[in-house]
Amino acid sequence: MAGINQNYNKLAAGYLFPEIARRTRGFQKKNPAKVLKKLGIGNTTEALTPAVIAGLTKGVNKLADPATYSGYGDEQGNMKLRQALSEYYESKGITLLPNDFFISDGAKPDSSNIQSIFSPDSVIAVQDPAYPVYVDSNVISGKSGNYSSKKGEYEGLIYMPCTEENNFFPALPDKKADLIYLCSPNNPTGAVATHKQLKIFVDYARENKSVIIFDAAYCEYISDPTLPRSIFEIEGAKKCALEINSLSKFAGFTGVRLGWTVVPEELIVEGTNPGEVRNLWNRRQCTFFNGASNIVQEGALAVFTEEGLKESGNLVNYYMENARIIRKGVESVGLTYYGGVNAPYVWIKTPEGISSWDFFDKLLSETGVIGTPGSGFGPGGEGYFRLSAFGHREEIEAAVESIKENLKI
Amino acid sequence: MAGINQNYNKLAAGYLFPEIARRTRGFQKKNPAKVLKKLGIGNTTEALTPAVIAGLTKGVNKLADPATYSGYGDEQGNMKLRQALSEYYESKGITLLPNDFFISDGAKPDSSNIQSIFSPDSVIAVQDPAYPVYVDSNVISGKSGNYSSKKGEYEGLIYMPCTEENNFFPALPDKKADLIYLCSPNNPTGAVATHKQLKIFVDYARENKSVIIFDAAYCEYISDPTLPRSIFEIEGAKKCALEINSLSKFAGFTGVRLGWTVVPEELIVEGTNPGEVRNLWNRRQCTFFNGASNIVQEGALAVFTEEGLKESGNLVNYYMENARIIRKGVESVGLTYYGGVNAPYVWIKTPEGISSWDFFDKLLSETGVIGTPGSGFGPGGEGYFRLSAFGHREEIEAAVESIKENLKI
Repeated sequence: MAGINQNYNKLAAGYLFPEIARRTRGFQKKNPAKVLKKLGIGNTTEALTPAVIAGLTKGVNKLADPATYSGYGDEQGNMKLRQALSEYYESKGITLLPNDFFISDGAKPDSSNIQSIFSPDSVIAVQDPAYPVYVDSNVISGKSGNYSSKKGEYEGLIYMPCTEENNFFPALPDKKADLIYLCSPNNPTGAVATHKQLKIFVDYARENKSVIIFDAAYCEYISDPTLPRSIFEIEGAKKCALEINSLSKFAGFTGVRLGWTVVPEELIVEGTNPGEVRNLWNRRQCTFFNGASNIVQEGALAVFTEEGLKESGNLVNYYMENARIIRKGVESVGLTYYGGVNAPYVWIKTPEGISSWDFFDKLLSETGVIGTPGSGFGPGGEGYFRLSAFGHREEIEAAVESIKENLKI
Repeated sequence: MAGINQNYNKLAAGYLFPEIARRTRGFQKKNPAKVLKKLGIGNTTEALTPAVIAGLTKGVNKLADPATYSGYGDEQGNMKLRQALSEYYESKGITLLPNDFFISDGAKPDSSNIQSIFSPDSVIAVQDPAYPVYVDSNVISGKSGNYSSKKGEYEGLIYMPCTEENNFFPALPDKKADLIYLCSPNNPTGAVATHKQLKIFVDYARENKSVIIFDAAYCEYISDPTLPRSIFEIEGAKKCALEINSLSKFAGFTGVRLGWTVVPEELIVEGTNPGEVRNLWNRRQCTFFNGASNIVQEGALAVFTEEGLKESGNLVNYYMENARIIRKGVESVGLTYYGGVNAPYVWIKTPEGISSWDFFDKLLSETGVIGTPGSGFGPGGEGYFRLSAFGHREEIEAAVESIKENLKI
C-alpha cells in the first residue's frame, strides 16, 4: 500500500513564488487593463551577451556533426569548464582544484539537494529571513519537526535572526548546528557579510565540526573590493565549508541553467578523511544527475573568456543601475530600505507595521508593482518587502514612477 | 557535529558506468595502441537532426534579443511542450492532460528522485537485472537494508527475477510491494513486455494500492505494433502508474538533457484524492528543480513536429540496424543472446558460465570491445553481458568483426 512522504504535509504553504504568481494572476484577471511591473522574482530580463550567444551557438553546431557530436558527458561537468572555474577563482586569489567543482543545472537544485549527503539527524541553521529552498528541502527530507504557525517556524530548525539591529547578518546559532546555510550577498536582504563576520562563522564551524553551506549566487554584484565574494577567502574555510554558485544572475542564465558547487578536497566532517565528503557529492551526482547540458556548458565556457567576463560585468552594472533607481525612488517616498548597493535586492521596511503580504496586495493594487513579501522568506522577514533590480530599465522606471505617484503612505 | 548520510556506506560499489570507465582507462593506459570499440554505455553517437538543430538555434537566438529573451520558466516546463507531448501521446491513442506532464532535464534525475515523494517505509520492488539508478536511489534515501554480498542484494528490497525461463519479464513480487519499477523495452535485457504481462502488474497494483514506476525511455525502439509503448495503454494504469521518458535515445538528447515524467491526475495512493500525487511531484519539482533549459525545450518542441518525428524515426532505424548487425555477429560466433529486436540492447549469455566482469575483461583484452557486465544491473544479471547498439556504424561493424576474429570461445 503505497503512501506519500508525510513530510510534505508539514510544509506551511505553497512555495513562495508560485503563490505570488497565483495572486498576480488573480489580480490581473480582475484588472485586465492594468499594466503590471514585475519586481518580484529575481528573474533576469536582458539578452545574453554576444560572447555567450556565440558559445551557445557553437555548442549547438557541434551537435549537428557526428565528428563533434557528444552524448552523455561527465556527471561532474566538462573538465574544461571545471578548469576555467578553477582559474577564475584563482584570478580572485582563491586556490581550488578543478576536481573541487561540480557543474550542475543550477544553484537551486544544488542548494536543495546538498543536505541529502549529510546525516538525517543533522541540526540545520538558517538565516532568518532566507531563500525558502534551504528550509523546504530540509523539511521535505525529514530534517525538521512540525510547523508552528504561532512562531512561523519549523520545530528543530535553528533560525538565526537577521535584523536592523545586527545589520542583517546573524549572531552565531544559540544551539549547536551541524549544517549552517549562509547567503552573501544576501537574498532577500541585500546585506553582504564582511570578512570578520564570516570568520566568526568559520571559526565556529571548525570548533563544532559543522559545515557551512555558502550560497554565493550574487557574488558578482559586490563592487566594494573590501567585501568577500567567496567563503574560501576566509582562512580555514576549506575545511568546513562548501560553496554554491551559478551563472543565473551573473550572465543571465536563469532560463539557460548552469550552476556549480565547490566541495573542497579539504572539507571534512565527523568520521571522514579529506576527499570523502567530495566523493560523497560525486556519488550523489553520479546517481541522481546526468550532467548539465553540453550546449549550456559551451555557453558557460564563453562566460569565462576575457570578452565574456567583460560583457557579464556590464550586465551586472545594468541591473545595479536599476537597483540605484529603486533605492532613490523608495527613499523619495520616505520608505526605509536596506541593501541594493552590493546586491540586486532592495529590502524595504513596510510602513506603519503593515504585514508583508498586506503590503504585497497594497502595492499591487495601488501601483501595479509586484514585489516579494518578506515573510515569504521566514518569520524574520515579516514587516519587510523585497524589490528586485532585475527588469528592463523602462519597467523599473515605470515601477518607481508609479510608487511615487500612487502609493498611499 | 556534522556527519554523513550513512546510507552511502551501504552502497555495494561504485556506480556501474564510472567503474567501466575506470577499467577502460586502466586498460587503455597499458595498451595505448589498441583501438577500443565502445558498446558499453547506451550513449548516442549520431548528430542531432536538422529540425532539432533548427529548434535549438531558435532557442539560442531568442535569448540574444531582450524582446524574446526568457529567464526562469515554469518548473513544470514550457506549456507548449507539455501540450505537444499530450498531443503526441494522443496520436498514439493515449489521453493525458498537458498538466500531467512534468518536463525535466532527463529520465535519470526523474527516476532517481521519484521515490522521494513516497513514504520512507515504502517497500520497493525492482526487476532483476535493472537499471542501477532505481536501486541506488532507494538505498541512498534509506528505503533498503544493508547489502548482502553473499546474495548480491540489498535487504528489504524485492528482486523480481527476469530469466531465460520467463522471457525476462518477471512474475509478480512474492511479497507486498508499494513501489514497483518496470522498464520496457528493458534496459538491460532488451525484452519488451506485452499488454498481457503489464495488465497482470496493473491489476496487482490496483488491488494492493501499489504504484508502478514505468520507465519507457526506449519505447520508440518498438517496431512491433502489437507491443505497448506506454503503461497507459493498459486499462486502469492511470490510477496506479506513473511514467518516465526522455528524448535521450529517441532524438539523441543524451548530452542535451530533456526528459519528462507523467503523473496522471487519476493516480492515487493511500489517503490521497485524485490530483494529490501529481501535486506532490509538482511541489517536489518546484522546490528541488528550476525547470529544464529554455534552449533545450525549444529543441524538444522541434522533435514533436512532423519533420522532427520523421527524422527521429530515422535515427532510431539507424541504431536498430546496428542492433541487427550485432545480433548477427554474436549469433555467428555461437553466443546465445536475447533482445535487440524492439530494443537497442543485445543481452548475451556469457559462454561456459564465465562471470559477467570476467567476460568484460576477456572481451576487452581479446577484442577491444567494451560492453557492460550484466551483474552490474543486479544479481540476476550475472552470467550475462549487454552490448549497446548506440555507436557509429563503422565502430559497430569493427566491433563485430573483432568479436568474430578474436574472441576465444
